[in-house]
Amino acid sequence: MTSLLALCVALFAVAVRAQTVQVDGNKVVEVLTRLANLSDHENPAVTRILFTPNDMLARNFVKDLMREHHMTIREDAMGNIFGRWEGSDASAGSVLTGSHCDAIPLAGMYDGTLGVIGAIEAVAALQRAGFKPSRPIEVLFFTSEEPTRFGLSCSGSRAMAGALTAEALESKLDSQGRHFLQVANEVGYGAASTSDMLAATRLKEGQVDYFVELHIEQGPLLEREGLDIGVVTAIAAPAALEVTFHGDGGHAGGQLMPDRNDAGLAGAELALAVERHVLASGSVDTVGTTGTFEIAPGAINSVPRDARLAIDIRDIDGPRRDRVVAAVLASAKEIAERRKVRYTSRVINQDPPASSHEDIVSAVAASAEALGLSTKRMVSRAYHDSLFMARVAPMGMIFIPCKNGWSHRPDEFSKPQDIANGVSVLALTMARLSGGSWPRTEL
Amino acid sequence: MTSLLALCVALFAVAVRAQTVQVDGNKVVEVLTRLANLSDHENPAVTRILFTPNDMLARNFVKDLMREHHMTIREDAMGNIFGRWEGSDASAGSVLTGSHCDAIPLAGMYDGTLGVIGAIEAVAALQRAGFKPSRPIEVLFFTSEEPTRFGLSCSGSRAMAGALTAEALESKLDSQGRHFLQVANEVGYGAASTSDMLAATRLKEGQVDYFVELHIEQGPLLEREGLDIGVVTAIAAPAALEVTFHGDGGHAGGQLMPDRNDAGLAGAELALAVERHVLASGSVDTVGTTGTFEIAPGAINSVPRDARLAIDIRDIDGPRRDRVVAAVLASAKEIAERRKVRYTSRVINQDPPASSHEDIVSAVAASAEALGLSTKRMVSRAYHDSLFMARVAPMGMIFIPCKNGWSHRPDEFSKPQDIANGVSVLALTMARLSGGSWPRTEL
Repeated sequence: MTSLLALCVALFAVAVRAQTVQVDGNKVVEVLTRLANLSDHENPAVTRILFTPNDMLARNFVKDLMREHHMTIREDAMGNIFGRWEGSDASAGSVLTGSHCDAIPLAGMYDGTLGVIGAIEAVAALQRAGFKPSRPIEVLFFTSEEPTRFGLSCSGSRAMAGALTAEALESKLDSQGRHFLQVANEVGYGAASTSDMLAATRLKEGQVDYFVELHIEQGPLLEREGLDIGVVTAIAAPAALEVTFHGDGGHAGGQLMPDRNDAGLAGAELALAVERHVLASGSVDTVGTTGTFEIAPGAINSVPRDARLAIDIRDIDGPRRDRVVAAVLASAKEIAERRKVRYTSRVINQDPPASSHEDIVSAVAASAEALGLSTKRMVSRAYHDSLFMARVAPMGMIFIPCKNGWSHRPDEFSKPQDIANGVSVLALTMARLSGGSWPRTEL
Repeated sequence: MTSLLALCVALFAVAVRAQTVQVDGNKVVEVLTRLANLSDHENPAVTRILFTPNDMLARNFVKDLMREHHMTIREDAMGNIFGRWEGSDASAGSVLTGSHCDAIPLAGMYDGTLGVIGAIEAVAALQRAGFKPSRPIEVLFFTSEEPTRFGLSCSGSRAMAGALTAEALESKLDSQGRHFLQVANEVGYGAASTSDMLAATRLKEGQVDYFVELHIEQGPLLEREGLDIGVVTAIAAPAALEVTFHGDGGHAGGQLMPDRNDAGLAGAELALAVERHVLASGSVDTVGTTGTFEIAPGAINSVPRDARLAIDIRDIDGPRRDRVVAAVLASAKEIAERRKVRYTSRVINQDPPASSHEDIVSAVAASAEALGLSTKRMVSRAYHDSLFMARVAPMGMIFIPCKNGWSHRPDEFSKPQDIANGVSVLALTMARLSGGSWPRTEL
């Protein structure tokens, strides 16, 4: 009741004050560019892997920004970083917003980072406007949304939502054969055991009242339709598979074709089968990708003995996604038998889709409208920490257009004006969800 | 004339003395095993890359063995190592024998090494038997028969034969972007320039009268037919291609299938096209392999932007091999156009086949017969330094069986008895080619 009342008050208060939230898109881009330079590859390419030196530098960079804007910093055992702006209602759960700053190899400077840097700027804009939150507002830097190091996406949000077991996490090793816990302990996070670490990371009941994430679309729809803001109603159901093929290898000259069982060719067939099964679903919403394809020994004069494929399959329709997953696994078996190679297949994750909460959808839509921005209700096909946050709190997402829908590549780009729009919508949405008050003097 | 006379003398002398060459196969295996431990991977896997610490240790290991057997050591500017057993005819060209000790990642312990360690043991056996060579006998450790580091096979023998230009060698970079010359200079070889290095490495006219190489078959035929010795009459024509595809990449979730140009899928199609074109040649002697298949960025949630394939195509019939090469290049073009990816293709090498010299073929056959060993005249489908040595001297090769024809893998294996047979045949063949004399006392 009180929260509903607060919401109504805020709705009114903000409606007449939308213009008082001032965001400079170029300034946000300037901060994002400084962050982009903390990278294992040269600008414009960004590579920032969990708990590497550049990831640790990015964490300090973000904590400094949080301090500049008077937030209290808390870091949990997995390295999720919270910057808290206290509200007048000390007993209330927070309005939580954030995203990730890790980047896959040779990625761009907006994916994830916009939802962290943009959130800090949204808080700054509310502070400049004299807004006083009722519910506390927290900005969150998620640990390892990208699966690069341990082959597990959204480690931080899975753990916060209690959706990650110690067995599952301990089964993941990085390329040096080390566990998450070992690496976390080395950089000053972690705990005595993986289960202690996960228990300490899990969010408490009532700790978060709303979660909202600002992100670039990573798809072409907003730009194509000339719209300003995407109001996300659901997040597509992602699945990840790993398939390995093992043949006997041999010398590329000496071993005759009839005597071969080439693991690389089995892998090539499976990669093409993934594409075929996805297209056969008949829906443009089904996507499938063989993003990792490694063969060994990998010498030009050696018949491939091993092939390892990591396959990503998503759909806004869970059952349809599952049918494609089953078809790909069946193809792996058929190819292995026909080519006389041994094989293993493993479902790394197969998560259900998530729906946004109507309170947040309407708050985002109303905020955009108050700013005179055009909107589209849409599904996020990309994978976000929001998918797991939806399990512990009402969730919503705000999308802005990005050039050609490009993401995970160095030329990923969003216009400063679109960034300003997204940050402004996030600021007003958080004000609505927080409740709280605008300066009386301006009434 | 004199050389023909010497050959006849030797043929007679050796015929009655075959039994006096004693070779212990187990001892050769013991030496090969010590060498196998100089590896970047754990025994039984052998990985030994040009001019790495383990390659340098292997060079010292071989030079020590040569000294033990009273050979004079010479190393050229490319790092080819010669161990010379002086003959009575100082003016004559040498009988040269040898092979390589470098090993592709995760290879075995016999490929190449048998032709170096076995040659030293053959010299030792002749010395034990009291044989006195007329032509000097030289054992050769070739630099970089494997293409692992610079993507160029047989660097040492190409240079010795004058079949390598400075431009070609300078166009090759290792994975750290460095040139052969830089790396060679760092380990104490090399010269002021690449062209100086190549000029200094080239063999002089009349320096070598015969070249013979002992090697495991790397194919299944001798074992399958239960034969002891392969008398190589020709070496198949090898070709190597590099094809790269470049798409636009994108996010595995956000980028819809119709908007993709996935470089990895283009590569997968080409790898399968290589197999298809090879099988279409209709001859079991045609082989083709995509041994290197690298995609970038290589993250599970990223659409492959780049794919690089290294393709090896061989045949005992040059023109038939060239038709397959042309078909593969045409497929690369067709796939790139259909999938809307950019591409580059490059012929790394496309060498003609080489024939063995009849003097050596008959010397090998007669030596095997004198030892009561069964033989098969056969073509080498694998690539050897002999291919290039044939351009500067009469060439021949001796094969021994290897288990299942397996090579370039850790379980590569040849029986100690087969190794003893091969080393004995090599010893008697060199005696025949050298001329020279057996102890009178035994006549």
